[in-house]
Amino acid sequence: MLGIMQDWPLTVNKILEHANRINPTREIITRRVEGNIVRTTYADLFKQSKQVSNALVDGGIKLGDRVATLGWNSERHMASWYGAMGIGAVLHTINPRLHPEQIAWIANHAEDKVLIFDKTFLPIVEAIKDHLQTVETFVIYADADTMPENNLGAVPFDIWIDGRSTNVRWGDFPEDTACGLCYTSGTTGDPKGVLYSHRSNVLHTMITMQRDAIGMGANDSVLPVVPMFHANAWGLALSCPAVGSNMVMPGAQMDGASIYELLDTEKVTITAAVPTVWLMLLNHLQENDLKLPHLEKVIIGGSAVPERILRAFEEDYEVDVVHAWGMTETSPLGTLGTLPPHMMDADIDTRMEQKLKQGRPPFGVELKIVNDEGEDLPNDGETSGRLVVRGAAIAAGYFKGVGGNVLDDNGFFDTGDVANIDEYGTMTITDRAKDVIKSGGEWISSIDIENIAVGHPKVANAAAIGIYHPKWDERPLLVVQPAPGETPSKEDVLAQLEGKIAKWWTPDDVVFVDEIPLGATGKINKLALRNQFKDYKLPTA
Amino acid sequence: MLGIMQDWPLTVNKILEHANRINPTREIITRRVEGNIVRTTYADLFKQSKQVSNALVDGGIKLGDRVATLGWNSERHMASWYGAMGIGAVLHTINPRLHPEQIAWIANHAEDKVLIFDKTFLPIVEAIKDHLQTVETFVIYADADTMPENNLGAVPFDIWIDGRSTNVRWGDFPEDTACGLCYTSGTTGDPKGVLYSHRSNVLHTMITMQRDAIGMGANDSVLPVVPMFHANAWGLALSCPAVGSNMVMPGAQMDGASIYELLDTEKVTITAAVPTVWLMLLNHLQENDLKLPHLEKVIIGGSAVPERILRAFEEDYEVDVVHAWGMTETSPLGTLGTLPPHMMDADIDTRMEQKLKQGRPPFGVELKIVNDEGEDLPNDGETSGRLVVRGAAIAAGYFKGVGGNVLDDNGFFDTGDVANIDEYGTMTITDRAKDVIKSGGEWISSIDIENIAVGHPKVANAAAIGIYHPKWDERPLLVVQPAPGETPSKEDVLAQLEGKIAKWWTPDDVVFVDEIPLGATGKINKLALRNQFKDYKLPTA
Ligand SMILES: Nc1ncnc2c1ncn2[C@@H]1O[C@H](COP(=O)(O)OP(=O)(O)OP(=O)(O)O)[C@@H](O)[C@H]1O
Ligand SMILES: Nc1ncnc2c1ncn2[C@@H]1O[C@H](COP(=O)(O)OP(=O)(O)OP(=O)(O)O)[C@@H](O)[C@H]1O
Ligand SMILES: [Mg+2]
Ligand SMILES: [Mg+2]
Repeated sequence: MLGIMQDWPLTVNKILEHANRINPTREIITRRVEGNIVRTTYADLFKQSKQVSNALVDGGIKLGDRVATLGWNSERHMASWYGAMGIGAVLHTINPRLHPEQIAWIANHAEDKVLIFDKTFLPIVEAIKDHLQTVETFVIYADADTMPENNLGAVPFDIWIDGRSTNVRWGDFPEDTACGLCYTSGTTGDPKGVLYSHRSNVLHTMITMQRDAIGMGANDSVLPVVPMFHANAWGLALSCPAVGSNMVMPGAQMDGASIYELLDTEKVTITAAVPTVWLMLLNHLQENDLKLPHLEKVIIGGSAVPERILRAFEEDYEVDVVHAWGMTETSPLGTLGTLPPHMMDADIDTRMEQKLKQGRPPFGVELKIVNDEGEDLPNDGETSGRLVVRGAAIAAGYFKGVGGNVLDDNGFFDTGDVANIDEYGTMTITDRAKDVIKSGGEWISSIDIENIAVGHPKVANAAAIGIYHPKWDERPLLVVQPAPGETPSKEDVLAQLEGKIAKWWTPDDVVFVDEIPLGATGKINKLALRNQFKDYKLPTA
Repeated sequence: MLGIMQDWPLTVNKILEHANRINPTREIITRRVEGNIVRTTYADLFKQSKQVSNALVDGGIKLGDRVATLGWNSERHMASWYGAMGIGAVLHTINPRLHPEQIAWIANHAEDKVLIFDKTFLPIVEAIKDHLQTVETFVIYADADTMPENNLGAVPFDIWIDGRSTNVRWGDFPEDTACGLCYTSGTTGDPKGVLYSHRSNVLHTMITMQRDAIGMGANDSVLPVVPMFHANAWGLALSCPAVGSNMVMPGAQMDGASIYELLDTEKVTITAAVPTVWLMLLNHLQENDLKLPHLEKVIIGGSAVPERILRAFEEDYEVDVVHAWGMTETSPLGTLGTLPPHMMDADIDTRMEQKLKQGRPPFGVELKIVNDEGEDLPNDGETSGRLVVRGAAIAAGYFKGVGGNVLDDNGFFDTGDVANIDEYGTMTITDRAKDVIKSGGEWISSIDIENIAVGHPKVANAAAIGIYHPKWDERPLLVVQPAPGETPSKEDVLAQLEGKIAKWWTPDDVVFVDEIPLGATGKINKLALRNQFKDYKLPTA
C-alpha cells in the first residue's frame, strides 16, 4: 500500500523559486573581478537565471546537455547554475586551477557545449581553444564596458541574457535527472566526474540545513570562500537560497585583507573555506590587530584543520570552528564537527581535541569502517579501517562509467580514506588508503606525522611517504619544506615528533625540499612526491 | 540523462538507525501514567522497536496492515511507531479524546488489526470492544505488575516484546510505501484519514530540522506536549531522533505544575503545544512566581496564538515564541513564525504583531491564496483568499478515496482556511472557509473578532458565527463564554471590539453561554454552535 501524498519532485529550481517567493529582498553581494562590489537580490537572481535558461534554450541546449563554467563565486555564476539546472541541462563546474591541458581534457570528456567563464581565465581558454572539441558557445562574465578583447567570438554574459524573457518552464522532469557534474581534485590519479542528480542536490541541501550541520537561517550572512567549482561550494550555492540567508561572494580575491573586509562590512555570521585561506586571514588579523565581532561559525574542511588555526579562531576570536570532512563524491559534506552533547561541559583541551577530529555524520549520511576483506570494524575510536559511506547524496559511480562499479554489496562507497570512528560516530581521518605506510604488516598514518611536524615553527609544510625497505616492506620518509628563512635540522623535526607518536612510527629519515608539490585544490600531491623519491634509499635499508 | 547517485530510499527506519549509531546515549524521559519517571536511550528504543517488529511479525502483521495506538507520549509509544513503521506496517494514531463511538468508527474504517493503548483508555476500549470489527490483538502499555484486569484478553506491552529477537529486516520497501495514518480532528465534519508515506515523513522531518523551522540539535532537550496522536506530535517523534535531541515525554499529565516540573528538572530548551496548554502553564508560573531559565523556544500552533500568551512568554519569561500553522494534511507543519530578517530590528510591538501571524513556509512547502474561481490572488498582506498548499509532505487525498480528488490542476491542496499572505510570504489565517461570515457579498473574519473579544478579562472564550439576515445574507453573532465568576455585558464586549475592527464587522448581537462546545483537539466546534443557534433571530433582522 502506498501513502496518499503529493508528488513533489526534488528539483533544484524549487530552491530558487522558494527564495524568490519568501526572501526576495535578501542579497547576494559580489566582489567583481574588477574589484567593485555589486549587490543583487534573490528576486533579481531568479529573473537572471530565467534569462540564462532562455539564452541556453535559444542556443539549442537541451535536457542533459553539459554547460560548463570556469568561474569565481559571483551572482552571475549563481545565475548560470540555476539557469542551466532549471531546464535540465547539466551544470559542469571546472576547477580553473588545474593545468590548462587537464581543463581541456575534462571539458572534452564532459562534452561541454557552452563554456561560461570569468575574464581572469581568458588566457587559459584562448590557449586551449583549439583543443576544445565540443564547445560551441563562449560567454564571459562581463558587460559591454568590461568585456575583454578575445579571439573566441565570446559574448558578454550581461548582453547574452539582456532583454530575454523570464518565461521558461523549469523542473518539469524526474528528480533523478542529472543536474551537476564535478570532477574530483585528481589528488590520487586522473579526475573522475561525479554526476549529481536534482534529488541528491536537494537532499544534500536539506542535510546541510540541519542545525548541527551548517544550520544557517534567513538571518545569516554567509561568505562561501570555498569556490563553487570546488565540490559545489560545499552546497552553499543551494542551501543559502533555500533558507534565504545573504550570500557574500568574494570573486577572485581570497587574500586575508579582502576576506576580512567582506567579513566586516557585510557582518558575515558564517563562512567556509579550506585551511590555507584561514592562515592568510589569521595573519592579516594578527598583523593589523583586528577582531571578528560578527562572525559566529567557520566551517573548515577539504583537508585536516591544523591545531593553530582551530585554537586561533576559538580562543583569540571566539568563533565556533566546525571541522568538516567530505569529498566530491559526497556532494560534498559527509561529517561535521559540531560538539556533541557529551563534550559540552568538557575542558577546553578536550573540546579542541574533539574538534580536530573530522566530526559526525548528519542524518542522511551513513559511515562505517571495514577491513580489506570488507568486514565491519568496531567503532571504538582506535581501530582504523577503510572508510565507506552510504547515503542520500553519495555517488554510485562516475560519469561515463569510469572506474566501473564502485559500490560494495551493501551499497557502500569506498572513500579511499582510512579512518577510525568512536562510539558516538565521531570520525577521524588517519590517512588516504593510497598514502598509508605499511611497515611490517602494520599501518602508519602519514597524516598524523605530518600534522605534528607542521607544528614546529621552522616547518612550513611536511609530507610523510612510504619508502621501500628490505625488512619492513615500507618505512616512513619525512619530506619537509622549511618556513621562509628557516633551516630546521633533522634533529629539530624528529624532536618535535618524539613522545607524540609510537616509537616505531618515527621516520627513518628527514629530507628538505624547497617546495612540496600541491594539487589544484591545494592538497599535497603525494603521487608526484612518491615519484620524485622513488629511487630514494633509506639510511636504514 | 540521470544522475549517478546512490539509491537511498527515504524510509523512517533510517531515522532511528541513525540515532542508534550516532546518539545512542541520548535519552527519552517519560512520565508514566503511574506517575513515575522512566529514562531510556535511543539505543534502548532501537532494541525495543525491533522487538515490537518481531512481536508484530509473529502476530501475522504484514506490509500495509494497520496497527493502531491510543497512547500518550511515551517511550513505549515511540517503540510502537518505529516497530510498526520499520516493517512497513501502517501506524495509526487514534485521538483518545474523540467520542468512543467515533473511535470505534475510525478503527473500523482503518481496519486496524492491533490496538496498543495506555491504561487510561481501558474503559473506552472495553466499552467499544464489541463494535471493533477488525482488531485481533490488544496490547496495554504496562508490565506484569502494572497490568490492569481487563476483559479483552490483552497482553502487557513489556511482556509482549520481552525476550524477543532484535533481528528483523527494516525498510526494505519503496519510499512511497504507506507509513502512518492519522484522521483529521473532525472540526468541520467527519474525520478523514491522511495516509503518510515513508518519503513524506522523512521529508517533513528534514523540513522541520531547518533552523528557521524548529531547528533542534543534538544538544537540545525537547518536550513535545503536543500528543503523538495529534498530527504526529508535529513531527517531533521523527525529528528529535533524527538529530539526537533528548525527548521529554509528559505521559498523561499536561497540567501546568506537571509540565513545569519537567521543563525545570530536564532543562528543556524547546517545547511545543496548542495554546490551551500554555494558559495552564502560565497560570502556574504566575501563581508560584516561577521562571523558565532553560527554555529557549516554544512552538505554538493548532489554533491562533492569543496575544497574552505570546507577550507573557516573550516579555515575562524571555522565551522565543514560534507561532506555527499546519494541519493533519500537511504532516503537519506548514508555516512557522520565526522572525524574518526585515523584522529583526523592529520595535517590540511590531515584532509581536508579526508573531501573531501564522508565519512563513520553510523550503518544502508552497503556499498561495486563490479566489473562488481558483485564480491567484496577490501577496499584498491585505487580500484574503482560500489558502492552497503544495509540497513534499502534503496530502494528495484521503484514505480509501474519501472526498475524491482534492488537488487542483496545478496540484495544490485546498486547506479550507482563508488567509492573506504578505510580500515576504508571511501568512495570516483570517478564517476557515466554512466559518467565514458573508455579509453583503463581503467576508467578515470570525477569527479576528474572536481574538479581540477574548482579550477582555471577563471573557473566557468567544465564537463569532454567521446568522441569517434578510438584507445582508449573514451578519455576525458573537457567542461568549464568561470567565469564571464574571458576568460581562453586551456593552463590555462590544466596547472591547470598538476601533479594532471595521465598523461593519461589529456583531449584530452578543449572547452568553455556559460553555462553548469544543472538539477533540480543543478547537471551537462551530458546527455544533451553528446548529445550536440555527433558529436565532438577530435583533436587526
Ligand atoms: N577535514 C578533512 N580532513 C582530512 N582530509 C580531508 C578533509 N576533508 C577532505 N579531506 C580529503 O579530501 C578528499 C576529498 O577531496 P576531493 O573530492 O576534492 O578530491 P581528492 O580526493 O583530493 O582527489 P581524487 O579523488 O581525484 O584523488 C577526501 O577523500 C579526504 O582525503
Ligand atoms: N496557528 C494557527 N492559527 C489558526 N488556525 C490554525 C493554526 N494552526 C492550525 N489551525 C487550524 O487547524 C486546522 C488543522 O487542524 P486539524 O488538521 O487538526 O483538523 P481540523 O481541520 O480541525 O479538522 P477537520 O479537517 O476534520 O475539520 C487548520 O486548517 C487551521 O484551520
Ligand atoms: Mg578522492
Ligand atoms: Mg481540516
